[in-house]
Amino acid sequence: MQRLGPWSREAWTVLALHLLRSSRSPNTGGLFFHCVQGGLVQSSAREFAEARMKTQLELNKEKSSFVIKTPKGTRDLSPQQMAIREKILNAVINCFKCHGAKGIDTPVFELKEILTEKYGEESRLIYELKDQGGELLALRYDLTVPFARYLAMNKIKKMKRYHVGKVWRRESPSIIQGRYREFCQCDFDIAGQFDPMIPDAECLKIIHEILSTLQLGDFLIKMSWKDVRQEMTGKIGLTPDVADQIGDYIQQCGGVSLVEQLLQDPKLSQNKQALEGLKDLKLLFEYLTLFGIAEKISFDLSLARGLDYYTGVIYEAVLLQSPTQQGEEALGVGSVAAGGRYDGLVGMFDPKGRKVPCVGLSIGVERIFSIVEQRMEVGPLIRATKKIQTTETQVLVATAQKNFLRERMKLIAELWDAGIRAEMLYKKNPSFLTQLHYCEETGIPLVAIIGEQELKDGVIKLRSVASRKEVDIKREDIVTEIQRRMSES
Amino acid sequence: MQRLGPWSREAWTVLALHLLRSSRSPNTGGLFFHCVQGGLVQSSAREFAEARMKTQLELNKEKSSFVIKTPKGTRDLSPQQMAIREKILNAVINCFKCHGAKGIDTPVFELKEILTEKYGEESRLIYELKDQGGELLALRYDLTVPFARYLAMNKIKKMKRYHVGKVWRRESPSIIQGRYREFCQCDFDIAGQFDPMIPDAECLKIIHEILSTLQLGDFLIKMSWKDVRQEMTGKIGLTPDVADQIGDYIQQCGGVSLVEQLLQDPKLSQNKQALEGLKDLKLLFEYLTLFGIAEKISFDLSLARGLDYYTGVIYEAVLLQSPTQQGEEALGVGSVAAGGRYDGLVGMFDPKGRKVPCVGLSIGVERIFSIVEQRMEVGPLIRATKKIQTTETQVLVATAQKNFLRERMKLIAELWDAGIRAEMLYKKNPSFLTQLHYCEETGIPLVAIIGEQELKDGVIKLRSVASRKEVDIKREDIVTEIQRRMSES
Repeated sequence: MQRLGPWSREAWTVLALHLLRSSRSPNTGGLFFHCVQGGLVQSSAREFAEARMKTQLELNKEKSSFVIKTPKGTRDLSPQQMAIREKILNAVINCFKCHGAKGIDTPVFELKEILTEKYGEESRLIYELKDQGGELLALRYDLTVPFARYLAMNKIKKMKRYHVGKVWRRESPSIIQGRYREFCQCDFDIAGQFDPMIPDAECLKIIHEILSTLQLGDFLIKMSWKDVRQEMTGKIGLTPDVADQIGDYIQQCGGVSLVEQLLQDPKLSQNKQALEGLKDLKLLFEYLTLFGIAEKISFDLSLARGLDYYTGVIYEAVLLQSPTQQGEEALGVGSVAAGGRYDGLVGMFDPKGRKVPCVGLSIGVERIFSIVEQRMEVGPLIRATKKIQTTETQVLVATAQKNFLRERMKLIAELWDAGIRAEMLYKKNPSFLTQLHYCEETGIPLVAIIGEQELKDGVIKLRSVASRKEVDIKREDIVTEIQRRMSES
Repeated sequence: MQRLGPWSREAWTVLALHLLRSSRSPNTGGLFFHCVQGGLVQSSAREFAEARMKTQLELNKEKSSFVIKTPKGTRDLSPQQMAIREKILNAVINCFKCHGAKGIDTPVFELKEILTEKYGEESRLIYELKDQGGELLALRYDLTVPFARYLAMNKIKKMKRYHVGKVWRRESPSIIQGRYREFCQCDFDIAGQFDPMIPDAECLKIIHEILSTLQLGDFLIKMSWKDVRQEMTGKIGLTPDVADQIGDYIQQCGGVSLVEQLLQDPKLSQNKQALEGLKDLKLLFEYLTLFGIAEKISFDLSLARGLDYYTGVIYEAVLLQSPTQQGEEALGVGSVAAGGRYDGLVGMFDPKGRKVPCVGLSIGVERIFSIVEQRMEVGPLIRATKKIQTTETQVLVATAQKNFLRERMKLIAELWDAGIRAEMLYKKNPSFLTQLHYCEETGIPLVAIIGEQELKDGVIKLRSVASRKEVDIKREDIVTEIQRRMSES
């Protein structure tokens, strides 16, 4: 019979039976003896175990036709990918915290009604859960609607929060091209009634900071406002071509210079509402100048964002492709951050429609992951010199002799208890070469070696993997010495 | 008309129209003039905007009967809860990394077939996704089955990985009592064929380390093996009562002493299989002794874990309630960590049934969160002295005078660019007291004050919120001074 665990079920059963036989408990002894007679139990346990294995094997046979995969549009992340992701997420979260944001979390699914009427045409891309009795649920489509629901539910009128989490969209295969149906978003939002354009400017500053920190190359932040293009083509009756040409023109004028030009126009300054809009726009550009980022912001009427909830300024950051980046053509230029103002969304969840103005941004980390990953793959220099470290192990506890498992275990427990990141091979007698290879493969910088001589001398031999230098360290000093070396590197 | 954003849609439209009017592009000018005539555009935009607002208001009216909530069995996490959770997760992940584990991630849903036949009776608690065309999907029930699928899919024969993520179980309301339908798991697993009991011992060591680090109070790790109780009652025909009494007896004997006693029994050592099991058990207890944790491990036959995939040793850690902890009675004693060996699971996903033996553990962080949260609520001392800090802001950029918004913005941008965590109030002219109050409320330790005199003298006044001491720092030294103070605290 195949072993089903650290030891066989039969052995366990026999052991259990024996316990009962030698049990001093009068209440259990009698009954137990009754069924032990004649080896009945042992054979019954074996039959059971064998029947079980057979069923499992049959199940495997049936399933051999079934392909093991992740669901369409999703993927696993390998340790290498996780290491890259962790670095990027840490940089993004650090920036959010730099701006005083608090973290929150919300469930991955919401009542279906919460998501209804928020995303316009894109609503058809929402994943719904099966009706298994009870509430009708759907996976969240972004982190903005759950945030608005959170504010309304808790009657919060003012909050600066960040939220990092997955969202799900049933993108059709033709659109998908490198986009995933499950992806991570990093959102920062400012809710509350404040003096105009100050939070809006901070959101743009944050996008600028994050893209600068991540060193993805040159970028541009395009700014527009919701629905204008749609109105021009729909209500005003322009052809999309013309609307785009208008956008091109505005984009050419760009940023501050455009605003200046407009304010000098006597016809425009006569219109009260246009003047008001222009004043806000000027204020925003003034703030962006104070923040030192105005030259990266372009005013682009042609920019459109599909989501229904935006009500004012919208923006999107794109990477400007450096023409010489080898092998990056396939990625194209895409949005890596986006956001805008949504003053009406929270009110839609409030029974009395009380509004909480909001402005925020979302970092498209999934796209950033792809870019960084691809660079690491195509950059032969990077690949050769900088192996991605997927563990943070500082020392391997090793031996060059046989029968030192117990000594290794005692030593590694000491290191673990001191908070040192340590590993050992799970073999009674691993070869010394195998242990050294393991360090080189995984990037472990130190080896703590114990053997007969070391045991006798009361020392541990500490070896640097890179320099191959070995020194004897007193057993009682080994923790301090490893900590010292790690703090130096 | 209500403002829909930083400035009204009408203002934007007028602005856009004006742009076109002054456009030098011959291709767009003509068409545009055509539809601008007679103020047509302005009124059409207003009508559109008003119609839109009306629809929104009507939607709000309809929805006032609909209760805004999170789905049954789920909850949001507030910034306070997130701050606690972050500390606990960091401690857990740090321990996993200490043991050389690599991180992976998998999608939150799997093909429904992947989850079938893995959880026994508990399968009915799996959340399924609606069939919207395409694959049939279900939310993952734990992190173990996705890990086994990952190993099989990538033909990985050896791996030490950790995974922190949410899982979902449709627990019935009667069972739920403090348990959530969405909850976080922290898993560590060792996959691969190794010498017996070494990885198993490390898993128990990790549980011990984490529970010690988190200082939740005294705990005990109960060890058993899968299916023995079930076999005793089902196949062997004992009544559940008797099986439990057997468990009680074994538990009383406990750990190492039990093994010693059994090995000295001549009847038992004559049985080859029982002897083999005992030898493994003895080996495990020997390793646990070397790791210094044997006294916390209790051998408890009555322990049962429902999941189908376990094949050998299983374990569960429980907190031992300290009788004097005020207000904690309601929580009861529950499992805070669990795991075991599952040697057959990976093979179920392999077309040829190739096995990869695995052993692992899962930290029940959700329960740990509840305990820590409740302690912070009931502990008046803790609450009074240690306010939970939800942001990490180091300095508030403030002013005591009017019209210093621009100077504040310039200064804060300098701080942000230097990586300093800084906030300012989003008001043109906030009162000085309001700014100081904000620091006290949110725990910001420093205030960087700028005013007329400071501007003239080329300095920034740096105030410590706790001591109220203020010193003038040269403008060019302010970044270094704040960094110095933060590194000291």
